[in-house]
Amino acid sequence: MKKLLLSLCIFSLISLFASAQPKPNLESIVQKHVKNYYADLYDFMVLPSNAHIKEQIQPNLDWLKKAFEKRGFSTEALPTGGHPVFFAEKKPATPTSGPLKTLLFYMHFDGQPVEPEKWQQESPYKPVLKKRGANGQWEKIDWNNLQTGYDPEWRIFARAVSDDKGPILMLLAALDMMQKESINSPYHIKVILDSEEEIGAPHLAEAVKKYKEKLAADFLMVMDGGRHLSNEPTLTYGCRGIATITLTTYGPKTPQHSGHYGNYAPNPALRMAQLLASMKDEDGRVTIPGYYDGISIDADARKILAAVPDSPENIRQKLGFAAPDKVGANYQEALQYPSLNIRGLVCANIGEKANTIVPEEAIAEIDLRLVPETDPDRLVSLIKKHIEGKGYVILNRKPTDEERLKYPKIVTLTERESRMLPFRTDFGIYPDRWLTAAMMRTFGKEPIKIRMTGGSVPIVPFLRELNLPAIHVPMVNMDNNQHAANENLRLGNYVEGIKTWMAILTQEQVK
Amino acid sequence: MKKLLLSLCIFSLISLFASAQPKPNLESIVQKHVKNYYADLYDFMVLPSNAHIKEQIQPNLDWLKKAFEKRGFSTEALPTGGHPVFFAEKKPATPTSGPLKTLLFYMHFDGQPVEPEKWQQESPYKPVLKKRGANGQWEKIDWNNLQTGYDPEWRIFARAVSDDKGPILMLLAALDMMQKESINSPYHIKVILDSEEEIGAPHLAEAVKKYKEKLAADFLMVMDGGRHLSNEPTLTYGCRGIATITLTTYGPKTPQHSGHYGNYAPNPALRMAQLLASMKDEDGRVTIPGYYDGISIDADARKILAAVPDSPENIRQKLGFAAPDKVGANYQEALQYPSLNIRGLVCANIGEKANTIVPEEAIAEIDLRLVPETDPDRLVSLIKKHIEGKGYVILNRKPTDEERLKYPKIVTLTERESRMLPFRTDFGIYPDRWLTAAMMRTFGKEPIKIRMTGGSVPIVPFLRELNLPAIHVPMVNMDNNQHAANENLRLGNYVEGIKTWMAILTQEQVK
Repeated sequence: MKKLLLSLCIFSLISLFASAQPKPNLESIVQKHVKNYYADLYDFMVLPSNAHIKEQIQPNLDWLKKAFEKRGFSTEALPTGGHPVFFAEKKPATPTSGPLKTLLFYMHFDGQPVEPEKWQQESPYKPVLKKRGANGQWEKIDWNNLQTGYDPEWRIFARAVSDDKGPILMLLAALDMMQKESINSPYHIKVILDSEEEIGAPHLAEAVKKYKEKLAADFLMVMDGGRHLSNEPTLTYGCRGIATITLTTYGPKTPQHSGHYGNYAPNPALRMAQLLASMKDEDGRVTIPGYYDGISIDADARKILAAVPDSPENIRQKLGFAAPDKVGANYQEALQYPSLNIRGLVCANIGEKANTIVPEEAIAEIDLRLVPETDPDRLVSLIKKHIEGKGYVILNRKPTDEERLKYPKIVTLTERESRMLPFRTDFGIYPDRWLTAAMMRTFGKEPIKIRMTGGSVPIVPFLRELNLPAIHVPMVNMDNNQHAANENLRLGNYVEGIKTWMAILTQEQVK
Repeated sequence: MKKLLLSLCIFSLISLFASAQPKPNLESIVQKHVKNYYADLYDFMVLPSNAHIKEQIQPNLDWLKKAFEKRGFSTEALPTGGHPVFFAEKKPATPTSGPLKTLLFYMHFDGQPVEPEKWQQESPYKPVLKKRGANGQWEKIDWNNLQTGYDPEWRIFARAVSDDKGPILMLLAALDMMQKESINSPYHIKVILDSEEEIGAPHLAEAVKKYKEKLAADFLMVMDGGRHLSNEPTLTYGCRGIATITLTTYGPKTPQHSGHYGNYAPNPALRMAQLLASMKDEDGRVTIPGYYDGISIDADARKILAAVPDSPENIRQKLGFAAPDKVGANYQEALQYPSLNIRGLVCANIGEKANTIVPEEAIAEIDLRLVPETDPDRLVSLIKKHIEGKGYVILNRKPTDEERLKYPKIVTLTERESRMLPFRTDFGIYPDRWLTAAMMRTFGKEPIKIRMTGGSVPIVPFLRELNLPAIHVPMVNMDNNQHAANENLRLGNYVEGIKTWMAILTQEQVK
């Protein structure tokens, strides 16, 4: 019995040693303090931060400097080719001895432009608290309600409140609460706050090259974007890239009367239709040989994909179609493949403006969503080879008169916009297991794991430049009207976000 | 010898009897008198006649009444549902005994609207005489030059001078010259001058029903349009009709992010491309079974078609393509078949406005040029059957939300504009032989015979309502800028037009 007690004592001592401080009850800490952080939130949200308007950036940098320095961080505004990016870091009093020592967090404080007339409030830059009324409409309620409690379904409406100032505010609140509760993080924390994300982060990769040593870390977490539609806790391991091509086919060099030349002058819309139709089957699968080469989804990944609680029926109802394309066995699987999507197609006019002509050209805009296995150069060259196989000469400009007379079938193929690259972090690596543990501490259950989200983010060059494992930790409600009018943040997500930050910053090393 | 002389005398007497008056030398008559008719021309051309502007019509009716009554015609302004049409007729002093007794001529005095700023002269309603300068540009010359002679390559520039007031003025000049030279026409001449042709002749068929007895005739000649591109004398025996259909295919009911839904939400542009591509082959031939049924071009017709002096190389150079579609063996043959031409195709946006979306719908505007063998109802039903064969449900309106969820493939098919019918008069019938003889007297050679022109004219319901043989006698130069700025009439065509009118009005019966 004594021996047993001794063993227990030793075990307890070891445990105590392993975690230097008793495990904090995150939930009670957040609930105790949260009402003190709405003032901070309000103060930051009233600062416009549209990256198109240079003068709006500096006040945000000033505010951030003060906020992070108050929490013991050293800060810098790092010059770039565009607006400066904000950098803050804090070393731990007692460093961890595990494999993860330095954590880098990426967020952005710039917000989308606004169209104030579309907002149902005085100004997008004057935060408003709303609850959903009996008729389903959002109704303004007094901000001071937040001092006596909150309903997780209430929302704060303001530009950038979810994309992406909210997560920054959650971090600041979490750091403050930890200070108040004397909870230390054993990690060297680095925070980089972008000022140009909403304009495509054009200078970020270059800045990373320049500040690579400063940003060095063991693991990068991107605290941006919305959770899974179900609003369940979510981690995202990758996203597709994008390349955009433009195809043009040609008819007569000026539009011709369709009576006089219909049946004689070649029709560019028919050419384009025949070309596009030849690239995919009835179910939306690309039929160009080799297009999907290199993609293999193993049984484990397939299991994780299948575990995402998507509702095909909800998507179907929401989007309004009878049956989806059949590129993957389900929605998540479809996103693991590159796409070949006709995003625009125009030849002459329709409706009241339609003329009885044989038009001169047809233009198709196509986007290829890229996955890590599909090099965009290879995809574009496969498309070119396919088009040439249909008897076309491919040019990278309009044909000359001589070329029109010489080649019966001409396509102009250009790339319209700069490419964005894909990224994907493997499931099961150490940072994944560590982060998953933090999420389980926060929510008491496994997060939804998104292997690859369909959209593209401008910070991928940054992720790739740093060459370290990266996982997105989306915190806000997906239905936040991001990029549109009436952007909002659900209070339940705000509070859970603070808790998530505390869990991550205090997460012990895992096995 | 005596017997022979007697025979010759009797023969001469008979000949004299057969043609009551000596055969006039049309060329010398025209050359002698033509300089006296430019004043008339000027007077009529200064009257605007845009059918969209009601007040412009009456002064033209007044002018025509005076002009025709001066030439011994009785006239009427026949009320219709729109502007009145002008009618004039004159019975012969000595009627012909042959099969053709009454000739009906259709022309129109209304002209296209004008954009004065695009005209290289003070006003489209102030006729200007021009010659082509050394640099190929048209240069104004003094109107009085016409009093001392003319160069056939000079042109008169004014709205409606070729389309279609010119032929009316040629008739008036011809009638006057015949009066001066005491040449009578043995025909009952009826002239109907439309006031709404350029706005689609919406009330003409109805007016014909009402005035059918007044318009009764043995042969209808339509003195409108331009000669063959070669400017050689031309007769046109028919024209294609037109029906327009609009197809719409559907994707998600609102545009979706192509990252999130590319590979999953069906793409309407792909659907449309696949549908359109399935309707025609690589050479532009319709592959829908039965589409060309009923059309057969016999050896004689094929010979006449082949005799039209088209230059495929000129068309190719002018339009700028390497090879034409292969519906017919040559250009004229292509026009004997119905077309299925994509005149407009739009799905979302292109260029700077392109978004990375899966669009919600694709719309194709299609025109079917009709020939007499192809009932438009039959063609449209063949197209419908073809689309249904591809697994589509066809609606005549947008689908409801329920239908979107129920049917994987939906097409909306509507007819956008009212149809225009085709017409064709057979080669070799009596009026053709008679008119050809008149043309040979005018020009000393066979006219080019166009079996069917590609375009559609709004007066076909009128032709069909009258149910009599009809042939177009185009008189003006084809490069007359009809419907555009700087409309003009070549003086050579004006003079030959007067001669053509005299030849027709004095043409004897043929065998």
